[in-house]
Amino acid sequence: MSRLVEVTELALRDAHQSLLATRMATEDMVGACEDIDKAGYWSVECWGGATYDSCIRFLNEDPWERLRTFRRLMPNSRLQMLLRGQNLLGYRHYEDTVVDRFVDKSAENGMDVFRVFDALNDVRNLKRAMDAVRRTGKIAEGTICYTTSPLHTVEKFVEMAQRLKDMGADTICIKDMAALLRPRPAYDIVKGIKEKCGKETLVHVHVHSTTGVTLVSLQKAIEAGADIVDTSISSLSLGPGHNPTESLVEMLADTGYTTRLDKDRLLKIKDHFAKVRPRYAAFESKILGVETEIFDSQIPGGMISNMESQLRQQGAGDRLKEVLAEVPRVREAAGYPPLVTPSSQIVGTQAVFNVLMGEYKALTGEFADLMLGYYGETIAARAPAIIEAAVKHAKKDPITCRPADLLKPEWEALRDAAIGLKGCNGSDEDVLTYAMFPQVAPKFFSTRDQGPKNVGKVPSTEPAAPAKGDAPARAGNGKGPITAPVTYEVTIGEKSHKVTVQPA
Amino acid sequence: MSRLVEVTELALRDAHQSLLATRMATEDMVGACEDIDKAGYWSVECWGGATYDSCIRFLNEDPWERLRTFRRLMPNSRLQMLLRGQNLLGYRHYEDTVVDRFVDKSAENGMDVFRVFDALNDVRNLKRAMDAVRRTGKIAEGTICYTTSPLHTVEKFVEMAQRLKDMGADTICIKDMAALLRPRPAYDIVKGIKEKCGKETLVHVHVHSTTGVTLVSLQKAIEAGADIVDTSISSLSLGPGHNPTESLVEMLADTGYTTRLDKDRLLKIKDHFAKVRPRYAAFESKILGVETEIFDSQIPGGMISNMESQLRQQGAGDRLKEVLAEVPRVREAAGYPPLVTPSSQIVGTQAVFNVLMGEYKALTGEFADLMLGYYGETIAARAPAIIEAAVKHAKKDPITCRPADLLKPEWEALRDAAIGLKGCNGSDEDVLTYAMFPQVAPKFFSTRDQGPKNVGKVPSTEPAAPAKGDAPARAGNGKGPITAPVTYEVTIGEKSHKVTVQPA
Repeated sequence: MSRLVEVTELALRDAHQSLLATRMATEDMVGACEDIDKAGYWSVECWGGATYDSCIRFLNEDPWERLRTFRRLMPNSRLQMLLRGQNLLGYRHYEDTVVDRFVDKSAENGMDVFRVFDALNDVRNLKRAMDAVRRTGKIAEGTICYTTSPLHTVEKFVEMAQRLKDMGADTICIKDMAALLRPRPAYDIVKGIKEKCGKETLVHVHVHSTTGVTLVSLQKAIEAGADIVDTSISSLSLGPGHNPTESLVEMLADTGYTTRLDKDRLLKIKDHFAKVRPRYAAFESKILGVETEIFDSQIPGGMISNMESQLRQQGAGDRLKEVLAEVPRVREAAGYPPLVTPSSQIVGTQAVFNVLMGEYKALTGEFADLMLGYYGETIAARAPAIIEAAVKHAKKDPITCRPADLLKPEWEALRDAAIGLKGCNGSDEDVLTYAMFPQVAPKFFSTRDQGPKNVGKVPSTEPAAPAKGDAPARAGNGKGPITAPVTYEVTIGEKSHKVTVQPA
Repeated sequence: MSRLVEVTELALRDAHQSLLATRMATEDMVGACEDIDKAGYWSVECWGGATYDSCIRFLNEDPWERLRTFRRLMPNSRLQMLLRGQNLLGYRHYEDTVVDRFVDKSAENGMDVFRVFDALNDVRNLKRAMDAVRRTGKIAEGTICYTTSPLHTVEKFVEMAQRLKDMGADTICIKDMAALLRPRPAYDIVKGIKEKCGKETLVHVHVHSTTGVTLVSLQKAIEAGADIVDTSISSLSLGPGHNPTESLVEMLADTGYTTRLDKDRLLKIKDHFAKVRPRYAAFESKILGVETEIFDSQIPGGMISNMESQLRQQGAGDRLKEVLAEVPRVREAAGYPPLVTPSSQIVGTQAVFNVLMGEYKALTGEFADLMLGYYGETIAARAPAIIEAAVKHAKKDPITCRPADLLKPEWEALRDAAIGLKGCNGSDEDVLTYAMFPQVAPKFFSTRDQGPKNVGKVPSTEPAAPAKGDAPARAGNGKGPITAPVTYEVTIGEKSHKVTVQPA
């Protein structure tokens, strides 16, 4: 008797987010939905912050309509989303009733599984969202962001799993966004969770394929008892994406484990996306090969390209090595946060500042907030001297409470502001769109009735949009030292900062 | 204490053969040789039939000079080659003293490890070459071509390993050229060999990455006791190539196994080939994604594209499905040969013939030879009725002896023919070049003094050369039935056949 291993298909969310800059139109997904619905997946990941953002920013699509479309076309499937805890799908903490409202509306529109995470692994930032999910009767997946540091031991991850379980998590997810999860810790963490939290605790493993080792990690996680694993159909797999669904199925043949996936359906899904993918060639990730350097540098590839671009802007393109060496120091000073949106941008930008202007001579507002606890608690203590600098910079005190405890009720104000926008339909869904993307929502509301804009339909001439925190490289040789103050913009999430840089 | 796992680097032979149509110039490899030499590999694969062929056919390079260059630049490394048993690097059986001469000269020029295989797994076709290698004091690696069929059980592969060991093999290789080796059989076969042939028997595992599962197979082979595994540096890996060397190293971290590879050297090798590879973009494999269909069809991707092209030539491009269904029947009739050069071409072309003209209404000379035993013995009996048809077609009798037993001494005749060619330098090496590639050698000898031609040096405008058995698609809609006899050419190895096809 083989043990059943369940599978979550990532094609409709993380796969095209990782490989095609999140640009895939709903129109290019609907043709695969029947096969996905009938292939035998445990769940279908199809919604999250980046897909929501891309819908309204680039595709003139209502993300809620996309969700309803999936619900209609995949009646037999659990639909799954990625939710940034108290941040929801935005870049700041929201007051609790906004969190409740978002979860209620998502469930009402068809969402079944909520994978709830926090960039700092501060479980207090997950609690409200998870409680809200449980109230709707849907599945609350408590999530551990996997990272490496002297503090991140197997025991710590297992303890976090227990805390999530105590908070009522229906399933526990190990989320390895940077492909850092090697086979050994994959085995040990899953084993540890099963031993500490009980065999019946469902463990769900999410890995990326960037480093080329993580299909082996899935094998080991399965041997240790993992119940559900994430993969993506082969024609939307590998590189910074995920391991191929079909390879997982074949890997398990005759090993005492089995999936219930239908290979003929998988082949159809593969063929569908093999046809779709070339239309989005302009948005293809530049890094499609294997990158193992991250194991030593701990710096995800996307973060490196952001920092390179920031340096080029300053004519300091030759100082990347110094910045790469600075990142681990900044990360240590900040209490070893996992490097994932938004902490990766916050740490990376501060490392650039430190190299260009001297250590902590200038702080971004976000870095100051991170040091002061306004994103939550970190696994290690943060450096006191830099906390002090942050107090001076931000003119506010450090906090130790849950950050959202400081927020005042905001739904009515958000609602009033949204309803005043041209094209807003007055629904709670529209208010939530405005709440999460206040800069993008107004334009989207005003153009929504023009209908979806498929940027992949014809070979695109539109250049790939710059990554967050990115800007066109300036003219100049990019070699000389900085000799005069330079003003430039740093974008983190939706917020832009004008920063003046001068030599230290 | 970790167990040491040794690694063979494939970058200089199989990697660019699988990914870049074997076009890489020596000039583009020398810059990586010092790092490869000092990285800590067990061996460096760098020579074989396709690289030899490509040197003289496309690159105007003397393959022996390439070998001597590697020897000089990698003084600390075992150099390794792939040798097609009694076929040497050519497409026919050679008389025994030619085999001896080739092995002697290869050893003399610097070769250390000879991976000797036969497309039918007929060990009699390996014996002479292996004996010759052992006489030189070099390493004779007896090789099992891995394939799947009702006859190819773990026990059969283990028995073959024992026969190779009895023949004096220094190491046993499991060669999985089509990425069919799943984790379970990888474990079982290695375990079986270690149990039957003794723990001290060195087991070397070669897998391709086409199906996406074989890094897991390497993990399982290592757990079962495999001593040496083949990988390729990440910038020349995946797709129809191999698993990335760096990923193997990271995979084993903290698992009780370790390599002795130097990560800094690996990074330099990676960077070297990352720069080189784009120059060969015109020769890139068209299939770079993951393909798992082969597990069911048993038909390697390269073979499918050959058959498609043959069908298009006949305006029968719509009959591929019939041909794909015919291949397993032809393979069964032929006694389940592994599908590897040249058996894959022989079986594939016959399947095309059967579909276009009726079952076995026309036979290629090679298929007749295969049925009559002139390539050697197959694992299963061949179909008597088709043997009879082959007798009629080829006007010769079936044989059961080792095919090369029928050959007369030929060295003097080969030598005389070679020496008469313009530009031949009279060395045994040149005679061997002529012996193996009689159609290509004359032109190569005559142009050799013009020096190497690097087809990757500038963005190439030369179209990728058609694959063997391939020819430009003809004009026409490729849809209509064949209504009149059509004559076309089928190329297998170096031999071309004019074949007239008419409706059955």
